[in-house]
Amino acid sequence: MKICPLYDRVVVRRNDEEEKSTGGIVLPSGAQEKPNQGEVVAVGDGAVLDDGGRRPLALKVGDKVVFGQYAGSNTVKLDGEELIIMREDEIYARIEG
Amino acid sequence: MKICPLYDRVVVRRNDEEEKSTGGIVLPSGAQEKPNQGEVVAVGDGAVLDDGGRRPLALKVGDKVVFGQYAGSNTVKLDGEELIIMREDEIYARIEG
Amino acid sequence: MKICPLYDRVVVRRNDEEEKSTGGIVLPSGAQEKPNQGEVVAVGDGAVLDDGGRRPLALKVGDKVVFGQYAGSNTVKLDGEELIIMREDEIYARIEG
Amino acid sequence: MKICPLYDRVVVRRNDEEEKSTGGIVLPSGAQEKPNQGEVVAVGDGAVLDDGGRRPLALKVGDKVVFGQYAGSNTVKLDGEELIIMREDEIYARIEG
Amino acid sequence: MKICPLYDRVVVRRNDEEEKSTGGIVLPSGAQEKPNQGEVVAVGDGAVLDDGGRRPLALKVGDKVVFGQYAGSNTVKLDGEELIIMREDEIYARIEG
Amino acid sequence: MKICPLYDRVVVRRNDEEEKSTGGIVLPSGAQEKPNQGEVVAVGDGAVLDDGGRRPLALKVGDKVVFGQYAGSNTVKLDGEELIIMREDEIYARIEG
Amino acid sequence: MKICPLYDRVVVRRNDEEEKSTGGIVLPSGAQEKPNQGEVVAVGDGAVLDDGGRRPLALKVGDKVVFGQYAGSNTVKLDGEELIIMREDEIYARIEG
Repeated sequence: MKICPLYDRVVVRRNDEEEKSTGGIVLPSGAQEKPNQGEVVAVGDGAVLDDGGRRPLALKVGDKVVFGQYAGSNTVKLDGEELIIMREDEIYARIEG
Repeated sequence: MKICPLYDRVVVRRNDEEEKSTGGIVLPSGAQEKPNQGEVVAVGDGAVLDDGGRRPLALKVGDKVVFGQYAGSNTVKLDGEELIIMREDEIYARIEG
Repeated sequence: MKICPLYDRVVVRRNDEEEKSTGGIVLPSGAQEKPNQGEVVAVGDGAVLDDGGRRPLALKVGDKVVFGQYAGSNTVKLDGEELIIMREDEIYARIEG
Repeated sequence: MKICPLYDRVVVRRNDEEEKSTGGIVLPSGAQEKPNQGEVVAVGDGAVLDDGGRRPLALKVGDKVVFGQYAGSNTVKLDGEELIIMREDEIYARIEG
Repeated sequence: MKICPLYDRVVVRRNDEEEKSTGGIVLPSGAQEKPNQGEVVAVGDGAVLDDGGRRPLALKVGDKVVFGQYAGSNTVKLDGEELIIMREDEIYARIEG
Repeated sequence: MKICPLYDRVVVRRNDEEEKSTGGIVLPSGAQEKPNQGEVVAVGDGAVLDDGGRRPLALKVGDKVVFGQYAGSNTVKLDGEELIIMREDEIYARIEG
Repeated sequence: MKICPLYDRVVVRRNDEEEKSTGGIVLPSGAQEKPNQGEVVAVGDGAVLDDGGRRPLALKVGDKVVFGQYAGSNTVKLDGEELIIMREDEIYARIEG
């Protein structure tokens, strides 16, 4: 079973909360907040341009990303795993290395 | 009797609530929430472009889709069956396989 | 006496409430709600494009339509009959057959 | 003394309330509401386009019109007569015959 | 000392309240309201177009104008006289004769 | 040390409150309000156009300006002096002579 | 580990609060406010244009900047250091010298 986001939407697997303490990038948060970073698992086939054409997304599957505080509210469960769907514009940055 | 959505609108048959427990994709929800997935039963003939032209929709009849939490409020009954009408942009992703 | 909607506006004769029980398409509603479907009785000569041109409407006189819950609030009486005026974009779908 | 609306604005003389009972088009209203129809007495020289050009208005002096419920709040008195100024887009339809 | 509005802004000298009773155009108002008409005393050098060009304004110095109820709140004092600055789009009409 | 506003932003040195009583232009204000006029001390290199190009600003360093009531809230201190940063569009007019 | 902002986003290292008293530019603030200035540590590869192209950003790594009061709320921790992510448009000016 495969999820194919439409247009400029992106599916992200949020990092485990345990990973928050392993160093690297975390969003400062109260103890009950979930980390706003994860890994891209699927990307749409492009944002719609005014003339009806498409602009390919900047992100690709496997990218590590940081996203906005309110971007994580649309979730789906795929084969038992919870994933987040958001627009690419709600993703702030890619983390490398 | 046939329903023909205008422009970028799409008609979706929501999955039965029983299907929620069969595995696959579901939106986490309280017991009383309806599943935010379904099957496309009709699509409009294209979104309107700034120059008056049309952009064909990405979805087609038969596609399995996941849609936004608030996308399911416009319903019609066709030959006794309740269907949902929404804009294609309110649909997050297509599910394959 | 004739009503000529401007630009992208459309005039609709709402179905009688009695028709609600005849089957076909109805919007689920409490007993006091009016049906959100009807027949197009007049259409404007086209939506205005950015360059000042016109885009002809998709609907034509005689089309059976389903419209949004809040689209029915602008009414006029023509020769004693109450009609609704809305933008074409407030109409969700055409019903055929 | 003459009033010349700018751009896409239109000046309308509202029908007398007595005319409401003569038949024809009226907006259903409580006893204290004013009729939302009238006659165009002046039109602007065109809506501004994105490129700075003008799009001539669809209405002309003498047209009988129906306008929106909230379109009638900007009034001027010209030689003792109260007139309404609105954008052409706030006018729903022209009445003929 | 001279005031030069930028772009699509216009400077207007509001009519004296005494003029309200001399006939001609007045906005119906409670006793404490100021008249929403006046004379243009300066105009900007043009509205900015999308491509960075300018569209010359329709109004010129000396025009008698009627403006919106909320357009009169930005005032400046020039050599002791209170003037109003507004966008040209907040002006409804020019009065001639 | 030098401040270089980005794009369409402008840095303004607000007039001293004492200058308010010297005549010329002032915004009517309660005793505790600051004057909404000043002198331009730095301008950005141009507003961004839709095609990514730049439109040079109308103002230049040294211009005396009047600005909007709410335009003065973003302040910076440069070498001990408080300055205001605003978009050029928040400036109403240039004062000459 | 490296952070790569998407499109028109910029990563800024906020100045230490101690630096506030060293002179130079500071935003007037209550004792508990953080300084709204810092140094650019990463920039996106360009803002998206209407036609799908990119406009390179004006800022580059190492620039000293002043940013808006509400621009500092999206923070990430990179290798233990807290950084701010914002759109370039939320940055008011570059400080030189």
